Amino acid sequence: MSDSPANGRPAGGASPDGPPPDEVDPTGAVAGWWATAVSRMEPGVIELRGRPVQDLIGRVGLTSMIWLMLRGDLPTARQAELLEAALVAAVDHGPQAPSIAVARMAATCGIGLNGAVASAVNTLGDSHGGAGEQCVVLLDEILREEAAGTALETAAARAVARGPRYVPGFGHRFHPVDPRRDPLLSLVERAAADGVVPGDHLRAGRAVEDLLAAGRSRPVPMNIDGATAIIYAELGFPAPLARGLFVLSRSVGILAHAWEESGQGRRNKGPIPRSVLPAHLA
Amino acid sequence: MSDSPANGRPAGGASPDGPPPDEVDPTGAVAGWWATAVSRMEPGVIELRGRPVQDLIGRVGLTSMIWLMLRGDLPTARQAELLEAALVAAVDHGPQAPSIAVARMAATCGIGLNGAVASAVNTLGDSHGGAGEQCVVLLDEILREEAAGTALETAAARAVARGPRYVPGFGHRFHPVDPRRDPLLSLVERAAADGVVPGDHLRAGRAVEDLLAAGRSRPVPMNIDGATAIIYAELGFPAPLARGLFVLSRSVGILAHAWEESGQGRRNKGPIPRSVLPAHLA
Amino acid sequence: MSDSPANGRPAGGASPDGPPPDEVDPTGAVAGWWATAVSRMEPGVIELRGRPVQDLIGRVGLTSMIWLMLRGDLPTARQAELLEAALVAAVDHGPQAPSIAVARMAATCGIGLNGAVASAVNTLGDSHGGAGEQCVVLLDEILREEAAGTALETAAARAVARGPRYVPGFGHRFHPVDPRRDPLLSLVERAAADGVVPGDHLRAGRAVEDLLAAGRSRPVPMNIDGATAIIYAELGFPAPLARGLFVLSRSVGILAHAWEESGQGRRNKGPIPRSVLPAHLA
Amino acid sequence: MSDSPANGRPAGGASPDGPPPDEVDPTGAVAGWWATAVSRMEPGVIELRGRPVQDLIGRVGLTSMIWLMLRGDLPTARQAELLEAALVAAVDHGPQAPSIAVARMAATCGIGLNGAVASAVNTLGDSHGGAGEQCVVLLDEILREEAAGTALETAAARAVARGPRYVPGFGHRFHPVDPRRDPLLSLVERAAADGVVPGDHLRAGRAVEDLLAAGRSRPVPMNIDGATAIIYAELGFPAPLARGLFVLSRSVGILAHAWEESGQGRRNKGPIPRSVLPAHLA
Repeated sequence: MSDSPANGRPAGGASPDGPPPDEVDPTGAVAGWWATAVSRMEPGVIELRGRPVQDLIGRVGLTSMIWLMLRGDLPTARQAELLEAALVAAVDHGPQAPSIAVARMAATCGIGLNGAVASAVNTLGDSHGGAGEQCVVLLDEILREEAAGTALETAAARAVARGPRYVPGFGHRFHPVDPRRDPLLSLVERAAADGVVPGDHLRAGRAVEDLLAAGRSRPVPMNIDGATAIIYAELGFPAPLARGLFVLSRSVGILAHAWEESGQGRRNKGPIPRSVLPAHLA
Repeated sequence: MSDSPANGRPAGGASPDGPPPDEVDPTGAVAGWWATAVSRMEPGVIELRGRPVQDLIGRVGLTSMIWLMLRGDLPTARQAELLEAALVAAVDHGPQAPSIAVARMAATCGIGLNGAVASAVNTLGDSHGGAGEQCVVLLDEILREEAAGTALETAAARAVARGPRYVPGFGHRFHPVDPRRDPLLSLVERAAADGVVPGDHLRAGRAVEDLLAAGRSRPVPMNIDGATAIIYAELGFPAPLARGLFVLSRSVGILAHAWEESGQGRRNKGPIPRSVLPAHLA
Repeated sequence: MSDSPANGRPAGGASPDGPPPDEVDPTGAVAGWWATAVSRMEPGVIELRGRPVQDLIGRVGLTSMIWLMLRGDLPTARQAELLEAALVAAVDHGPQAPSIAVARMAATCGIGLNGAVASAVNTLGDSHGGAGEQCVVLLDEILREEAAGTALETAAARAVARGPRYVPGFGHRFHPVDPRRDPLLSLVERAAADGVVPGDHLRAGRAVEDLLAAGRSRPVPMNIDGATAIIYAELGFPAPLARGLFVLSRSVGILAHAWEESGQGRRNKGPIPRSVLPAHLA
Repeated sequence: MSDSPANGRPAGGASPDGPPPDEVDPTGAVAGWWATAVSRMEPGVIELRGRPVQDLIGRVGLTSMIWLMLRGDLPTARQAELLEAALVAAVDHGPQAPSIAVARMAATCGIGLNGAVASAVNTLGDSHGGAGEQCVVLLDEILREEAAGTALETAAARAVARGPRYVPGFGHRFHPVDPRRDPLLSLVERAAADGVVPGDHLRAGRAVEDLLAAGRSRPVPMNIDGATAIIYAELGFPAPLARGLFVLSRSVGILAHAWEESGQGRRNKGPIPRSVLPAHLA
């Protein structure tokens, strides 16, 4: 939107914006500073990852478009399905999640939906949005050790022992069993069985889960971060994109909550009912 | 992600977080302050718009999920296709768009992909991300006047005359014809012909386009903002969600550019090559 | 900070970053695109508003620096005092303000103090941070009408009648009398009496206050937004900078709360105690 | 600002917002969730760090207010001067710094000064805003080793050898000598000589500087991050607040640039002149 009055030279003829490009940028250093393989714009031309946008509109789904933009090629139908399941699963976890609460409060402050989404997405940092990324790193480590000759169980035990107290991707203080775990893992299993994905990160994730269950009365099952991390890694996304993809997914819930709140008539909503004042620490 | 150590009471038993909910919130005012129809969480239960998440994962596509979260029901297949085409069309317009440039620079500053996306999405304000929303408002006005008995052409002329100098959704300084216009309008036409959408906003948009072409050597054709605004409005989304949906769409391109840039090894990337210093205004 | 490995050409000699500036930018269009009167950088030289930075450090206070950067000249001591009083007055209003709550929640999400401040400052929009700006606009209107020959009381009554239901800068749901009002107004009075400021916006603000008190059992006294708006306007800052200056002021409280919260050990803090679940709207 | 219609219960009498606080929050868990020592609000009362706001307005400077809010006590005049010098020194480094460029572009996108500042401040991450924090950590390490009996030079050499390739706080690609270094270090020296600060972090910083100069034709002098880090640490601020204080300081330049840009009439400003298109990577 508003790419329009925003960017670009008028098509053909002399530019009202100054000298022509070859005089402004004779060495190409300016164009090169912003070089990209993601998209190419010419007057009348929009190519995304080398494909004219008109060939994509109406033919390629949103999930495939995400894959294309991030990786440069299109997924197979089965790959897209698996990615889509992960993206759908993590859209929301209610206003007790700081990202959702921030979105709702910001939506009452007069900053537009873009601003509400921005303040909220920003909170998906190392603690709130990083467990998937950290889980991919963990599983990658385990698989590297296994590839070097260590038994999977041993590799898992070592990686968990080296890591932080909260094993990223496992356990939930709220859900005894995360209802998103089983359907996601079933889809990965089927995909692995059909050769759509290798299945290695699934094996590694299960090894961690078994390890964390051993000898405990209350197991520490895989959570949404773990299950989606496995999917992203099985599909070949590097660890930081586990966070990036989560950002896209959670943006859906963030927008939905910001929108609902903006229809409820509050102005400058605080975190607790107005009659309650924060306690004072001495 | 990381809903896990984040939120919620341990399932069953006494809470380590303090007194039980009915003592903390006997009047329900605290729970009510955060009341929502978007999602419902109980230990072991995640419902999104009244549907258990496990019934959605693997069965509902991402675009349908967006519709569900924003509106509470699921779209038909044809509605979802039309929405998906609009979402796909607007993902990116290259680094000359401030949102994309901000994403790439931010990605070199050590703030994580969530932070880069947030700084960028935030810029999708009234000028950069608002044309679709403003276009829906314009088309709504025209249709209201038509419903009150004015001829469509007259209603369009009046609404344009009342509005700002740049008619939102029309004209492009860069593209003589926006390559996204035709495929998007074709899809709306077909949907209207098949009764999937009413077709009124399409008629109104075309009336504005005709008006802006009349007697000009260089017409001012509909741009991406106009074409997607028509789709969103035809599908029944209120005007502010034209911006909200654009935010979700452009987030894909924002993430792709932030990710590409983060792989290019720059630290604290400025806007122009390092050897060029900003000119000094007296 | 980290301007260092971030920006700039190596001083003297050939650049490792590519061709020299006069080849990269022969027309000056690239340097001109980023032209600014705010600062000038050369290797070994930093000038802020035309003054070498080494002449400012240790000699100019922070408030005077804010004035200098925004306006290009230095304030007198009395002007700086008045500005400083306004900046000090608005630093914080506790966690019931969404900006403060957002800062505290964000600080527990693993995004650094910069990210927490950003998510919070972003919420200072039209509703939460815009009343001062709107109040300046209102007072400007009143003074324009007065200058055109209308009595001040009449001008105030008309401007208030034309405006929104909440008169920006007046009334407070929390404080019957805002404790920041009197000390701020006393300072403006004294400054007007001494000829430091004209005193017109003060007169206009008082006229609005009188108007809103007339015939009411419960008056609607000026609040912090009104009192600081008067100061900013008396000192000659245009309306949008009333919001800009408030952003700088409130950033102090935002940072203080983010920092305190980050020391309290919570991860991904939600808005209400964990045992309470948001109510579900049907 | 706009704390007003935002927060709070009506003073005295029954609340239109629902039941009274002691019914809403009988256990105090809700008030306790937001407990803070930073500020206390009651109807008619605003206390900041235990001091009534009316005792601060007009009596305490902005820099002292920053200290008070972050630490709970007021600085001496000499402490405040030193802190003020550091805050003044780092306000701006021109549009080649991504934070400044982001502020200027965002200011043309229709998001208000709060939004422009937020997008910009957000970029002050580990790379762009973190060197001061990292430098404090480095100097702390050196001083800890020295306290344990190691010679300062040896401790410095070890800490630098353990650290990253770019030593945080030292060297500048742009400035052969940073013009902010000498005036800042002079102020610390004088403060140490007068017993205002201990002078240990200054000694440690100098030891690193000597180490990096030894045997090199081109020395690697302390930069703004290093010099301000020394000041913050000498004054007793913990490392993360070196970033936090930089955020406040740079916000001044960010606001000034956003404001200047918003007066130059561009809409949706991209990073390079419009006639130049980003190069396409194959």
